[in-house]
Amino acid sequence: MKDDAQLRAEVCDANRALGASGLVTLTWGNASAISADRSVVAIKPSGVDYASLTPDHIVLVDLEGNPVRGSLRASTDTPTHLALYKAFPSIRGIVHTHSFYATMFAQARLEIPCLGTTHADHFAQSVPVTRQLSPAELDEYERNTGRVIIERFASIDPGAVPGVLVAGHGPFAWGPSCAKALENAIALEAIARLAHGTFALAPNAQTLEAHVLHKHHQRKHGPNRYYGQP
Amino acid sequence: MKDDAQLRAEVCDANRALGASGLVTLTWGNASAISADRSVVAIKPSGVDYASLTPDHIVLVDLEGNPVRGSLRASTDTPTHLALYKAFPSIRGIVHTHSFYATMFAQARLEIPCLGTTHADHFAQSVPVTRQLSPAELDEYERNTGRVIIERFASIDPGAVPGVLVAGHGPFAWGPSCAKALENAIALEAIARLAHGTFALAPNAQTLEAHVLHKHHQRKHGPNRYYGQP
Amino acid sequence: MKDDAQLRAEVCDANRALGASGLVTLTWGNASAISADRSVVAIKPSGVDYASLTPDHIVLVDLEGNPVRGSLRASTDTPTHLALYKAFPSIRGIVHTHSFYATMFAQARLEIPCLGTTHADHFAQSVPVTRQLSPAELDEYERNTGRVIIERFASIDPGAVPGVLVAGHGPFAWGPSCAKALENAIALEAIARLAHGTFALAPNAQTLEAHVLHKHHQRKHGPNRYYGQP
Amino acid sequence: MKDDAQLRAEVCDANRALGASGLVTLTWGNASAISADRSVVAIKPSGVDYASLTPDHIVLVDLEGNPVRGSLRASTDTPTHLALYKAFPSIRGIVHTHSFYATMFAQARLEIPCLGTTHADHFAQSVPVTRQLSPAELDEYERNTGRVIIERFASIDPGAVPGVLVAGHGPFAWGPSCAKALENAIALEAIARLAHGTFALAPNAQTLEAHVLHKHHQRKHGPNRYYGQP
Repeated sequence: MKDDAQLRAEVCDANRALGASGLVTLTWGNASAISADRSVVAIKPSGVDYASLTPDHIVLVDLEGNPVRGSLRASTDTPTHLALYKAFPSIRGIVHTHSFYATMFAQARLEIPCLGTTHADHFAQSVPVTRQLSPAELDEYERNTGRVIIERFASIDPGAVPGVLVAGHGPFAWGPSCAKALENAIALEAIARLAHGTFALAPNAQTLEAHVLHKHHQRKHGPNRYYGQP
Repeated sequence: MKDDAQLRAEVCDANRALGASGLVTLTWGNASAISADRSVVAIKPSGVDYASLTPDHIVLVDLEGNPVRGSLRASTDTPTHLALYKAFPSIRGIVHTHSFYATMFAQARLEIPCLGTTHADHFAQSVPVTRQLSPAELDEYERNTGRVIIERFASIDPGAVPGVLVAGHGPFAWGPSCAKALENAIALEAIARLAHGTFALAPNAQTLEAHVLHKHHQRKHGPNRYYGQP
Repeated sequence: MKDDAQLRAEVCDANRALGASGLVTLTWGNASAISADRSVVAIKPSGVDYASLTPDHIVLVDLEGNPVRGSLRASTDTPTHLALYKAFPSIRGIVHTHSFYATMFAQARLEIPCLGTTHADHFAQSVPVTRQLSPAELDEYERNTGRVIIERFASIDPGAVPGVLVAGHGPFAWGPSCAKALENAIALEAIARLAHGTFALAPNAQTLEAHVLHKHHQRKHGPNRYYGQP
Repeated sequence: MKDDAQLRAEVCDANRALGASGLVTLTWGNASAISADRSVVAIKPSGVDYASLTPDHIVLVDLEGNPVRGSLRASTDTPTHLALYKAFPSIRGIVHTHSFYATMFAQARLEIPCLGTTHADHFAQSVPVTRQLSPAELDEYERNTGRVIIERFASIDPGAVPGVLVAGHGPFAWGPSCAKALENAIALEAIARLAHGTFALAPNAQTLEAHVLHKHHQRKHGPNRYYGQP
């Protein structure tokens, strides 16, 4: 119970920070986190303003989506979050937005190539794009949105590539906590904006040399990382 | 009378929120609402700052535009609002702006095709553009602005497509209340910005598959909608 | 003396509003006003922060640029302002900025054609661009900047076209007061941003039909104007 | 000791101002300053939020990078700063960011030509781009980032050109103090944004005539400069 309270507080904070981040318009975005034992997920209620959220509004569901606590309806995107938590055991937080530049790439159905060290600091390769869902897959629309993401990550490590673009929709980002997932959502939007403007200047801009990409990713995420405080 | 006070308060709130929304420069925008019995319309006075508006400043007019209450002159766009209220019985609020990206499409005289789910969540098809007014139509300029909108909606449901681009001018958005009309104006600007940036990346970007468009619009607006709280 | 105090207060307010308007980076912009008898000009001191300005900091100069009051050095652009006040007797305030979109057009040395009613509401035709100064004209650089503006307005009414782009430099806007000059500087930046984004969508975007341009300009500025309060 | 306290206070202020400047996302940027006797450098600690910085957090290192004071780890970019302080004796402050428009040019590996007086006011020529580091140079990555900057400035005066774009990475700016370095970082971002938008309008935009470039740079930085207060 005490753990649940902490989980809801953490998810409330992440959703409020998301609302203040500049990544969301109206109520188009949500943050969630999974408990340490991976038995429950805390997530934003659907269609509620960020600034008015309190931990009490945060909805708890089990991994099948059954309500565990809270009287509000969970975000409609909950089945997508659940599918990702089940498939990616290393992640503990997820943030979904319709942030402008990442969504432009998602709408153009173009992956974001690594054009600079800002990208390499957060993503170990291009940010991938999913395929579109088939008519038959609309039946379980949100759950299948999770499935096409998982399909796209068949040979990608979600720890090294903490986000994706859903074709014709927008970005999902994740991380070892919902605070880190929000950081990755912010980084993804910045990377997308930089790539958008770089292509405007130079349509054939070259990707970052592999040796520099690797170096930058390792100095923040490798076993001998030296960015930040020890 | 009590109803009028509530209508003016609601319209005052919507205009103040419009001023704080980032959609308006100087005083280029206005919000209105019609009473439940559709006998009077409350609208922003012309050329007054948003932040200083009080319910007392809000002007009441009848459906012919005759002043019913208030000593200030109503927005010059009042005849456009009135024409729309008469033609679209399902709407109760209207917001007009010169918001940047929607106005760029209006100036380019290009409709905004549906390129993603953000669009589909709010508009059931492309955002249409009107034709330009003829010289003869300038006589009753603002009223005829309403008429070319209505003409463009001859076979479009204003409930499913809650906004339009007036050629060479800018957007009008509407909804079941002036608060909802403002939400639709915000959504329209976001959709326009996303489309603008998507076309910069991919001039031939494909439109959203019809089955996904329909699914997204229905989950927010259909008879079995499940977005938001019940 | 009392009139001078009012003039300085007005110019202080306009410069502070300019600093808060989003039109200026660092200290790249200034506002001035001329006294009713057109004997003295009040202007921002050079290189001083907007937020810390008080009426006491505002510098008074005569029309030859000689200091009349104040211990600070006047804006380096003072001779440009003086040249315009002498040549355009209908104006009483001037605002100079390096605002982003207007400066892009100035750097591209392209006039801003009228693409929509937002433009027509404020400028009765294209926003003109000056020619570049010759090497010989650098001698009196700031004064000659005024002269190339005046040269460009040989057959343009500065009352109907309240601003200009100086080639390779940036915009100057003016009006019947420094508050109105600031409004015109804000409108000019918005018009430039709209045109920039319209051309990105439609490189051959058509200009606004003459009859609509005229109608819009007249409804705000003509003898029978009906925008704003009487 | 007292001098050190002042140096740390100054660097703390510059980092806090950097955080509020709009130039940084997350913690992607840092400011430093060197002592008057050029024996110690004060710099931001790695990965710490700007708003929570106090002078006590600021790290002091000697010119070989050995910690002199402070328990936090210095910015990972410290060796780049140190290399620049050693090579450019006229500078006393450095600011590094991933600001959007300057980084777009760095990613496109295009120098920023002087297209207008805004540029000429701050940079006496194009803003140069470095070459990319070779695989062998990754060994001492941050130090060699400094070296490729210095190599690029073999025949450029860092006093007249107070910034650079590191290929595939982002901008470094500098000046006679860290406050001035921040001003130059802000100017560099504005110049980049103006150039980006100018090229969108006019891909073959002409550079500013040499006589005007020189005039503008001299009026702010030449021996007879007359911008700002004496």
